[in-house]
Amino acid sequence: MPRTGRRPGPAKTREKILGAARSHFGLEGYDGATLRGIAALAGVDPALIPHYFGSKEGVFLAAVEFPIDPSEFIPRLLEPGVDGLGERLVLFFLETWDSPSGASLLALIRSVVSNDRAAELMREFVSREVLGRLAEAIQLDQPKLRASLVATQLVGLAMLRYVIKVEAVKSASPAELARWIGPSIQRYLTEPVR
Amino acid sequence: MPRTGRRPGPAKTREKILGAARSHFGLEGYDGATLRGIAALAGVDPALIPHYFGSKEGVFLAAVEFPIDPSEFIPRLLEPGVDGLGERLVLFFLETWDSPSGASLLALIRSVVSNDRAAELMREFVSREVLGRLAEAIQLDQPKLRASLVATQLVGLAMLRYVIKVEAVKSASPAELARWIGPSIQRYLTEPVR
Repeated sequence: MPRTGRRPGPAKTREKILGAARSHFGLEGYDGATLRGIAALAGVDPALIPHYFGSKEGVFLAAVEFPIDPSEFIPRLLEPGVDGLGERLVLFFLETWDSPSGASLLALIRSVVSNDRAAELMREFVSREVLGRLAEAIQLDQPKLRASLVATQLVGLAMLRYVIKVEAVKSASPAELARWIGPSIQRYLTEPVR
Repeated sequence: MPRTGRRPGPAKTREKILGAARSHFGLEGYDGATLRGIAALAGVDPALIPHYFGSKEGVFLAAVEFPIDPSEFIPRLLEPGVDGLGERLVLFFLETWDSPSGASLLALIRSVVSNDRAAELMREFVSREVLGRLAEAIQLDQPKLRASLVATQLVGLAMLRYVIKVEAVKSASPAELARWIGPSIQRYLTEPVR
């Protein structure tokens, strides 16, 4: 039964904000978007967005259905220190892809590859919130390049294992892949430039 | 002026074979496709296909506009021996993507990511003709996994540099990327399993 003549409930307000956020991020990009702009488009009080989603990053994650929160997982992976970070990153990455979240990540890769605007938006978000956080933890020169090289190896692993599904990579265990690939990532993070 | 009442010229026959090849590869996959099947669909003598395209691999490369020929470049990269092979692979890969052939490679990545049948076809072709040739040259155990790990790193490099266009990877020189990434690939090719 339609509920008429009542003020929209929280679920409806949340959906309205997410719809506005998708349009606003699409138009302004991640860096250019503001909570004020999203609120104006949604026709809601700007203070409501932090209430529902915490931050610009939070509303973005919900709007594009990004299944993991970099403000949570990056500090957690960095916490034990840099030793073994390469293997930990590979294991966390595969665990996420092998979980129900993998379907959202596959959908995101598809939209990024087929749509230049989606690629731009995801580039800004990943550069700032994922690679930026990783780069901050790197104590050596060229931190942004190092963090991006880590991303080349992980994105390629996802392409071969989950998109193209090459047998040898698809059938390898996470532990085996971490043993092979972890040291490459560790090198990008820690090896002095030659 | 349309040329009517004449037998089709070589350009027309070639196009007819390529159209039939695209359908036949799409239906049968790379491994299942045969020159006889392509010829039947095109309505031409099967002997004509080797004449125009050399082999199944040759007609496939032309049909999907794959811009480089693995039967040529893999032996050439392997010829100087395994020393420095990682850096040579990175440099050759970037040189190809940075050339006019890069547009064809980008189109292929897009079709593979958006279309499961295209992914299957490309997986069969790349596994057999690219990774298979590379694996044959590897003197250690797990040659298929090793060749596939090389592919994870190179495909991810293309994704960050040419599709997502992350600044640090996009603006790095080929020589710089080869210095960073070459040793990872070299390790996949030559390091004993731990």
